[in-house]
Amino acid sequence: MAKRKQLKTDICWSTEDKITIKGLDLCQDIMGKVSLGDMAFLEMMDRLPNERESRVFNALAVILVEHGMTPSAIVTRMTLAGAPEAMQAAVAAGLSGLGSVFVGSMENAARMLQEALPDPAQPGDIAALAARIVDEHAARGRTVPGIGHHIHKPVDPRAPRLFEIAGENGFGGPYVALMQAVAEAAQARLGKSLPVNATGAIAAVASELGIPWRVVRGIGVMSRAIGLVAHVLEELREPMAREIKAMVEEEATAHLR
Amino acid sequence: MAKRKQLKTDICWSTEDKITIKGLDLCQDIMGKVSLGDMAFLEMMDRLPNERESRVFNALAVILVEHGMTPSAIVTRMTLAGAPEAMQAAVAAGLSGLGSVFVGSMENAARMLQEALPDPAQPGDIAALAARIVDEHAARGRTVPGIGHHIHKPVDPRAPRLFEIAGENGFGGPYVALMQAVAEAAQARLGKSLPVNATGAIAAVASELGIPWRVVRGIGVMSRAIGLVAHVLEELREPMAREIKAMVEEEATAHLR
Amino acid sequence: MAKRKQLKTDICWSTEDKITIKGLDLCQDIMGKVSLGDMAFLEMMDRLPNERESRVFNALAVILVEHGMTPSAIVTRMTLAGAPEAMQAAVAAGLSGLGSVFVGSMENAARMLQEALPDPAQPGDIAALAARIVDEHAARGRTVPGIGHHIHKPVDPRAPRLFEIAGENGFGGPYVALMQAVAEAAQARLGKSLPVNATGAIAAVASELGIPWRVVRGIGVMSRAIGLVAHVLEELREPMAREIKAMVEEEATAHLR
Amino acid sequence: MAKRKQLKTDICWSTEDKITIKGLDLCQDIMGKVSLGDMAFLEMMDRLPNERESRVFNALAVILVEHGMTPSAIVTRMTLAGAPEAMQAAVAAGLSGLGSVFVGSMENAARMLQEALPDPAQPGDIAALAARIVDEHAARGRTVPGIGHHIHKPVDPRAPRLFEIAGENGFGGPYVALMQAVAEAAQARLGKSLPVNATGAIAAVASELGIPWRVVRGIGVMSRAIGLVAHVLEELREPMAREIKAMVEEEATAHLR
Repeated sequence: MAKRKQLKTDICWSTEDKITIKGLDLCQDIMGKVSLGDMAFLEMMDRLPNERESRVFNALAVILVEHGMTPSAIVTRMTLAGAPEAMQAAVAAGLSGLGSVFVGSMENAARMLQEALPDPAQPGDIAALAARIVDEHAARGRTVPGIGHHIHKPVDPRAPRLFEIAGENGFGGPYVALMQAVAEAAQARLGKSLPVNATGAIAAVASELGIPWRVVRGIGVMSRAIGLVAHVLEELREPMAREIKAMVEEEATAHLR
Repeated sequence: MAKRKQLKTDICWSTEDKITIKGLDLCQDIMGKVSLGDMAFLEMMDRLPNERESRVFNALAVILVEHGMTPSAIVTRMTLAGAPEAMQAAVAAGLSGLGSVFVGSMENAARMLQEALPDPAQPGDIAALAARIVDEHAARGRTVPGIGHHIHKPVDPRAPRLFEIAGENGFGGPYVALMQAVAEAAQARLGKSLPVNATGAIAAVASELGIPWRVVRGIGVMSRAIGLVAHVLEELREPMAREIKAMVEEEATAHLR
Repeated sequence: MAKRKQLKTDICWSTEDKITIKGLDLCQDIMGKVSLGDMAFLEMMDRLPNERESRVFNALAVILVEHGMTPSAIVTRMTLAGAPEAMQAAVAAGLSGLGSVFVGSMENAARMLQEALPDPAQPGDIAALAARIVDEHAARGRTVPGIGHHIHKPVDPRAPRLFEIAGENGFGGPYVALMQAVAEAAQARLGKSLPVNATGAIAAVASELGIPWRVVRGIGVMSRAIGLVAHVLEELREPMAREIKAMVEEEATAHLR
Repeated sequence: MAKRKQLKTDICWSTEDKITIKGLDLCQDIMGKVSLGDMAFLEMMDRLPNERESRVFNALAVILVEHGMTPSAIVTRMTLAGAPEAMQAAVAAGLSGLGSVFVGSMENAARMLQEALPDPAQPGDIAALAARIVDEHAARGRTVPGIGHHIHKPVDPRAPRLFEIAGENGFGGPYVALMQAVAEAAQARLGKSLPVNATGAIAAVASELGIPWRVVRGIGVMSRAIGLVAHVLEELREPMAREIKAMVEEEATAHLR
């Protein structure tokens, strides 16, 4: 075999009597002291959050846990109906659809912000930057991510609330300003109301926390895993998968009968 | 179509300006007030934890986040190497193996405890109950779940630490006592050291918290999703999947060359 | 590191100019000569089928490819809607539900037959064996797998047709006889019509072909993967996932509005 | 609810006594008459293949079934080790990595060919087209998909063999010519040997068969599902997952001890 690269991980190692995670002793430094959300921050950022980071990160993460009967929740329930002995596979199937359409738009918004503003300490002229972003998207015929509302929501209430929490804790900085400026520039250009949505707010606040855009999707994945376990539970108690199947099959094949 | 059952969920619903989760308003009652771990408790138990429950639940959940280069972590990394554009599928693949072998033993221990002690308010004679459990397992030729150590671990340090935290917060009750009595009864019967392991401790403390055994696996699934995102991150920065593949292929086909 | 077992595979190995699969040269012995179904037989049985085995195995496998808007098909479509860039993850999610409920009953029937008749060359008294099987299931309160019909199907037409093809090719042997005798014994005992269903017929014919029961589920998994690709295609051309989501959400949360 | 689109499928429907797939009666028209590979063609192309199409399609599909200890095979084995009761989830996990890196290059090559030559009846000047394709890739700094060899393979033997089978059956048409011309143009430009590889040959021949590029990945997914079942079987008989895990963990954490 050709000489090969050494395998190497720095996340976690164990000895006879100790488990070390990112340099901390699981039993002494983490258990009883670090909450699940702060543990997630540690896993992603290689250090524990301070109190203000913790408040903002947890506020952001809880938004992504649950959104009702999403395609993911339906997938988890339908999978559980066929394999009730493998709850983990039902959650996994539900997570598999967290791709470009929903969670991806969060990723795209974070990328847009972080690429436009690589050094948040030197934000420069935010309004000019926002205008350029909107122009570039228009030139390429692309939708600006992170703004606009679905049919029934004049303003997505999660966005202003997350900005509020971020601001109270010192994270209402240049990325939040840029995201809002982008929304204003787009509104001016297109002449319609395009407020920052939850996706855009999460992208901006994650950027404030220093979370690289490539990993923003990961917050959605971990948080949604929690929500999908709740759907497993409800499906076990009050199943709906067979009804959905019957309903879909009946309607979809009606023209063939 | 035959008359069919009404589909019905009580987890979450949304209106134009509000998202309600288990009866709480996401923006007003949850964001900025509830941590990710407490949100997980809410999703599983239909109510927020009090402070002591929160401490114990979070301590239990963080144990399950990360255990290094497990089969799950390797699966996530190998999957990412083939589909780097679908991080969610890499995490999903990693979760798919959380079945009967590892996470299942946690579930089995919780089931053993909860079936033996359906009403923890009336524990009765714990030592006698433990002896009967061990006898029944022996009679059926089954291993008692939740006890015993792997080769290099005289005592799994997570177990006494979790019991300690549970005890400090008022959750060192009959399920913890039963789990410990089971370990003692098994040691007496088999004449070798069989301390409660992490699996048994988690099962006992989850039972103390009132978490049904059918859902105990779910805590493992949600927590591990967090850990697998960290492995995605490290694999993006310092990949090892190709090396593992080369290493495995070279050795496994050496006898054919 | 403790001395460890050598990794070893005998399925496939490659050199600079040759790929060898189960001892056959892919380019010379397989491509252009072996069909996909016969390749599947090779992969499962370590040898190519003869002509009669090929006819029977392919007839059995095609049954499992497609059954319309199953939970698996719905799962694949809902997953694709969220991650259209990851078709493989959509198929994977759809396969994840092929567990104990549907494909498992095929596995259970095959296991029942193979454990009752470990040596098909010495079938003994088939009727007595069938009666014993039915008695044992009744004694343990278990449903006999492989028999009985769903509401709208007096006889599952796939079962007699598969038996016919098996018989024409010399595979209407003791496992087929036993499966039919089990159905008769159950009918006699319960006083209602319980013909062999598709599941039972597949289990019996797979047993005739010498396929171990542990792998019978695998035929379902590989065949259904083909069908799920067709659902991916149709969903791309004529999407229904969003409609299903809207329909489910509307009905399931109606009581909360 | 707003008026919504009718759900509609044309793949398969069932009545009391008949299952119809793409217009054919499963029991009368398919079972015993159509092989698994031809069934796959039917599912993808809405009609059965003729004899020559069948030979070429099956030759193409069998290439994708098995390639030894790939990342996918390792993933399936590691997942099975944790959840041996859920073989379908192990296969699903293995399929999840069939993304942009390997199967995606097949898709990219098919897209390149089909977009360059939307009407194969009017191929025009193939050499000029090939030169333009290579120029465009060079101008955008992109690698031309479907050509070039890995370290140890001067010529991928699957490519000439598949072209040979295609040619013998009347499918050595303009897409095959274009793929070969692209390889020649790239070689001329870059001054090194860049023969068509298996990926490029499959893309060209799939295009000859009229398979849309969007679905080419699907052939890889369905075929590989077959191969992964063989890895499940071998792992059950001769497990290697625990050894792989031990090997990886030991090496990857060595620097921490």
